Amino acid sequence: MTAESDSNSVQPGASGSNRVVTACLLIIGNEILSGRTKDANLAFLGENLNEIGVRLMEARVVPDIEAVIVETLNEVRGKFDYVFTTGGIGPTHDDITSACVARAFGVPWSLHPEAHALLKAHYAEGELNEARLRMAHTPEGASLIENPISKAPGFQMENVFVMAGIPRVMQAMFDSLKSRLTGGAPVRSVTLAVSLPEGGIAAGLGVAQNEFPEVEMGSYPYRTGDRFGVRLVLRSVDEERLEAAVEAVTAMIRGLGDEPERE
Amino acid sequence: MTAESDSNSVQPGASGSNRVVTACLLIIGNEILSGRTKDANLAFLGENLNEIGVRLMEARVVPDIEAVIVETLNEVRGKFDYVFTTGGIGPTHDDITSACVARAFGVPWSLHPEAHALLKAHYAEGELNEARLRMAHTPEGASLIENPISKAPGFQMENVFVMAGIPRVMQAMFDSLKSRLTGGAPVRSVTLAVSLPEGGIAAGLGVAQNEFPEVEMGSYPYRTGDRFGVRLVLRSVDEERLEAAVEAVTAMIRGLGDEPERE
Repeated sequence: MTAESDSNSVQPGASGSNRVVTACLLIIGNEILSGRTKDANLAFLGENLNEIGVRLMEARVVPDIEAVIVETLNEVRGKFDYVFTTGGIGPTHDDITSACVARAFGVPWSLHPEAHALLKAHYAEGELNEARLRMAHTPEGASLIENPISKAPGFQMENVFVMAGIPRVMQAMFDSLKSRLTGGAPVRSVTLAVSLPEGGIAAGLGVAQNEFPEVEMGSYPYRTGDRFGVRLVLRSVDEERLEAAVEAVTAMIRGLGDEPERE
Repeated sequence: MTAESDSNSVQPGASGSNRVVTACLLIIGNEILSGRTKDANLAFLGENLNEIGVRLMEARVVPDIEAVIVETLNEVRGKFDYVFTTGGIGPTHDDITSACVARAFGVPWSLHPEAHALLKAHYAEGELNEARLRMAHTPEGASLIENPISKAPGFQMENVFVMAGIPRVMQAMFDSLKSRLTGGAPVRSVTLAVSLPEGGIAAGLGVAQNEFPEVEMGSYPYRTGDRFGVRLVLRSVDEERLEAAVEAVTAMIRGLGDEPERE
């Protein structure tokens, strides 16, 4: 049981100064599910959202199937403060994300004048064919997200941000949009490397977790050559309590005969 | 629009000889959502399930929160033929997957005699403490999944397979369990590397997709140094139609002045 589940502090819709701002990532594409392409956007988004005080609470990977995308999007956009999608906004027949977002919001999918202008400026005369023009279509009412890499923009519809799947483009789009996000307090994190087996420290760690419910304590075993150990990750929005928890856990580990390394 | 969404052939519960056997992966752990740990199990499972004719249709990453795990598990185990979970089965307080599965199935979470015997044999006298004993608990009625790496087993409850998060252990567990899975026809795949921009081939590819609805055609742009290109991935359970589609797409690309390389 983590700090979150004890306190319910990370449930969306909570109020007050410690309200946690939540997000969900929707990764769209058969190529991720088939194992052909390894997703690199989840880890980037998790880290970068945290820096601005937004907590990634869930991610879903769904195939290029219209009904699944529409249904999933409508579920998660009601459940989380922000939804980010990656993938499926190129020019080919399997790029259906944009039209699906329009359907989810119940609005027409139509040529966006600004996006049209961007692509007209980018492509040479005669190159802006029907397929590429699809990338200038958005749900009606969308505001664009700039793409400094390959020009075809992403877009925002209410709390939904639609981005490209290619990591370099996705990251540039995230830079373009992040000023639109309002986060809460960012989560601070301390990692302690411990040269003891996980099963040996579990009891003491459980005691510490109970003592510091506002500090989330995670335990991640590792093995380097013949050396087994555990990385303990302590996270909290409350820096003072975090430091107190780090002290308590450090004392507990010392009591077991090891000196934890703060990473 | 892909072949699947046209034909609905990959919806779970469809019947007939071409019935697609579906799976969902539930990745459990705050460390994945925070970006601290990069998941490596999704790509492995997608590929390896496909080889035995099981199609990974969705993946979800959820935090270590009991209510979320229980609710998600109950949703997906009714929706897909098989559900695989990774993560959260170690000895520490944040390892709550096993108890959550018991709650989802509405059965007690109790000491599994076989798992108990395995751990007693593995640990030296006095080392099998309370925390490690948690790893010998399963939902009542579970059958174990062997873990040749670190002994603490995974388990199966009906169509749900509970595995470790550490990739090496997860892969060993998957090897142990895969004889229990009944797949359909495996999906064959051909990749064509094309040195043309995606927007230039999109129209022709759309025509080919319409002609071969039983072949899923994906288009993935890449860039190597200054060279832009697209990898076209054609996938189908019908090998004959797949080859016919590859021929049609190859002819289409040649018509645009490029010679696709079959990878």
